[in-house]
Amino acid sequence: MKYSEMTHEQLKAERKAVNAQYQELKSLGLKLDMSRGKPNKDQLDLSMGMVDALQGSDLVGEEGVDCRNYGVLDGIIEAKRLLSAMIECPVDQIIIYGNSSLNVMYDTVARSMTHGVMGSTPWAKLDKVKFLCPVPGYDRHFAITEFFGIEMINIPLNADGPDMDMVEDLVSKDDSIKGIWCVPKYSNPSGITYSDETVRRFAHLKPAAKDFRIYWDNAYCIHHLYEDKQDHILEILHECEKAGNPDLVFKFCSTSKVTFPGSGIAAIAASKANLDFIKKQMTIQTIGHDKINQLRHVKFFGDFNGMLEHMKKHAEVIRPKFEAVLNALDTELAPLDIAKWTKPNGGYFIALDTMDGCAKRVVALCREAGVVMTGAGATYPYGKDPHDSNIRIAPTYPTTEELVKACEVFTTCVKLATLDKLLETA
Amino acid sequence: MKYSEMTHEQLKAERKAVNAQYQELKSLGLKLDMSRGKPNKDQLDLSMGMVDALQGSDLVGEEGVDCRNYGVLDGIIEAKRLLSAMIECPVDQIIIYGNSSLNVMYDTVARSMTHGVMGSTPWAKLDKVKFLCPVPGYDRHFAITEFFGIEMINIPLNADGPDMDMVEDLVSKDDSIKGIWCVPKYSNPSGITYSDETVRRFAHLKPAAKDFRIYWDNAYCIHHLYEDKQDHILEILHECEKAGNPDLVFKFCSTSKVTFPGSGIAAIAASKANLDFIKKQMTIQTIGHDKINQLRHVKFFGDFNGMLEHMKKHAEVIRPKFEAVLNALDTELAPLDIAKWTKPNGGYFIALDTMDGCAKRVVALCREAGVVMTGAGATYPYGKDPHDSNIRIAPTYPTTEELVKACEVFTTCVKLATLDKLLETA
Repeated sequence: MKYSEMTHEQLKAERKAVNAQYQELKSLGLKLDMSRGKPNKDQLDLSMGMVDALQGSDLVGEEGVDCRNYGVLDGIIEAKRLLSAMIECPVDQIIIYGNSSLNVMYDTVARSMTHGVMGSTPWAKLDKVKFLCPVPGYDRHFAITEFFGIEMINIPLNADGPDMDMVEDLVSKDDSIKGIWCVPKYSNPSGITYSDETVRRFAHLKPAAKDFRIYWDNAYCIHHLYEDKQDHILEILHECEKAGNPDLVFKFCSTSKVTFPGSGIAAIAASKANLDFIKKQMTIQTIGHDKINQLRHVKFFGDFNGMLEHMKKHAEVIRPKFEAVLNALDTELAPLDIAKWTKPNGGYFIALDTMDGCAKRVVALCREAGVVMTGAGATYPYGKDPHDSNIRIAPTYPTTEELVKACEVFTTCVKLATLDKLLETA
Repeated sequence: MKYSEMTHEQLKAERKAVNAQYQELKSLGLKLDMSRGKPNKDQLDLSMGMVDALQGSDLVGEEGVDCRNYGVLDGIIEAKRLLSAMIECPVDQIIIYGNSSLNVMYDTVARSMTHGVMGSTPWAKLDKVKFLCPVPGYDRHFAITEFFGIEMINIPLNADGPDMDMVEDLVSKDDSIKGIWCVPKYSNPSGITYSDETVRRFAHLKPAAKDFRIYWDNAYCIHHLYEDKQDHILEILHECEKAGNPDLVFKFCSTSKVTFPGSGIAAIAASKANLDFIKKQMTIQTIGHDKINQLRHVKFFGDFNGMLEHMKKHAEVIRPKFEAVLNALDTELAPLDIAKWTKPNGGYFIALDTMDGCAKRVVALCREAGVVMTGAGATYPYGKDPHDSNIRIAPTYPTTEELVKACEVFTTCVKLATLDKLLETA
């Protein structure tokens, strides 16, 4: 029976039953974590071949580069080929970085603060700089812009992408808007993928600020859960070029959730003009990134097909986890009609919306019962979810057994918080 | 016979002979490089054990950290232990970074531009920021400060370190002076090491700017050439603490010239207050650096003694190269009394001073004859050597055979440029 159809007395009885269940779960002294998008041990085991991948190699790249020594600022050609296939760009429109695409994004914003974008005024010299933030979104994106004092504006994220009417309107009018954070495929946290129309509208943006860029974090570009249900996304660099806006986008990717998080390789793809500007900074910042690790990735995968085959193994490990969560939500919450959630075809997250005003309480209740969730509000700039309803569920890290238990706690907490809200407002 | 004692006619005859020699060398079509401090192939071969160092390891650190996964912002404990021994600081006063100490230094300046130092005004908001630059010095240091528009002031570097009278005077009077670049041991390029008194005077500085820091790039801390002739340097962090200036210094180091350049690990050491401030940025910038590579270093060396043993092998490879250069200079130039140079006990460079106004010409003549030297002036801020006399010689990369040939070219060019100068001013 839906909670909305219950009488006050029925709600009270239900609250009593749910609370008893909650207290029982609490007494188990659980210690479970559904908070971060971390691969689990079985996934990490898939890449143990990385350890031996260079055995017997002389560490010389195919262009004769001794990968052991200094040099090659923007990456060895074979690594460029691998990641440009992954990120779908020409080999000459990519720079290979170190282990973290987050660091590349941070650098991109930091450089704009001190040196502008392709010759524009450094943002640190402007009174006001703003970013658009499709919400719910990725907390670490928002943390970067907050760190640099950049004002963030929420943009609703719909099933086909950000509200493009709002995006078009804002960027065309306000030249202090310098960027928009996007996770266009299997979005963090809702798992949605931008439609072709959304991508085309992005490519055709006419921003008032000529240093406006789309920060296109294609973190989950090959991170499918199913072989038969895969999202596809239009390639934005090419769309921008066709639209006469070749410099409009920075694309980011990494192998953090392909091989080893923290020991992967990251990349930026952009127009040649953007890359030339970026390299002027890079050449001051470093002599070059870890070419041996680049070569290690190439040897381990062979080619992009090897990488895709590898991703199928990841999918096999994490698909049951997503299904365990979705199953629990369907069984426990769907009949009560007290929450909505996404059923993504890939990525690392499921986003759940509680009744307004319940998310913080749910996360707190979970924590009390030993289940750590991503902080409520974390999916919004400044940690402020105006509806206090969005919760990010990260199913990958726990074992499936742990997940089942964690979901029991979680669904119980959603019920309890909802009941309290309904009873309080009744 | 010294050139200074030659008559005009003798100089003209010598010039004719030297020029003939130069033309002959030029006709050989050489292609040699003494420009950068790059390890040579034999040195790189010393670290091939890095490739297998993790074989059979489960990649779990001694504190139970799965090095394959996300996490551990500031480095695994065993890597901290190894590099804190190298850089001579307590284990809790170090952060392990990625592959490049240059990148750490860049980040340190970049962060100060946008966020100040431990709560000070961001430098980007100040009218003027200045750095002191002991000269000759490291071109990549100067490139960082130049990139951020920081004004650089030359400080003469003597045999015992920078002119401390000048340093003390300037930093105590001018609060726009925010830092000084130092390579305190086996300095780049002159190879000198700061005396105990110099280090103590650094530790006792009373800068007008409370966000003034000493940028102590201990790049060559264990890079000795000899077992019996080694420079020692007072540990500056400890000296600063004793002097009541615990926050005054940032120390940097890396294993770039220990294992593989580009695939090493880097570190910063500083007071806890400094590190706490730095970590506030780091946590926005990255989830963590490459822990597997940290573990790889620890497994390869075992402990710091292993690292020191390894450095002896480096010394064996490069000592003959330094000696080949010094031998050529002693044989060819010393009798003529037309240049001065250093005889370092470690590091990667020999600095040579020509007669004033000759360095650019020497480097150009070398290039014409197929020998690439570091650009004249590169060892000074803005590439401007006021005397046009300093040339950095990097003996490590070529084979000893190539070096002997390169030195023949180089000494011939020094003679030719000097003769032309003497004849021109006669």
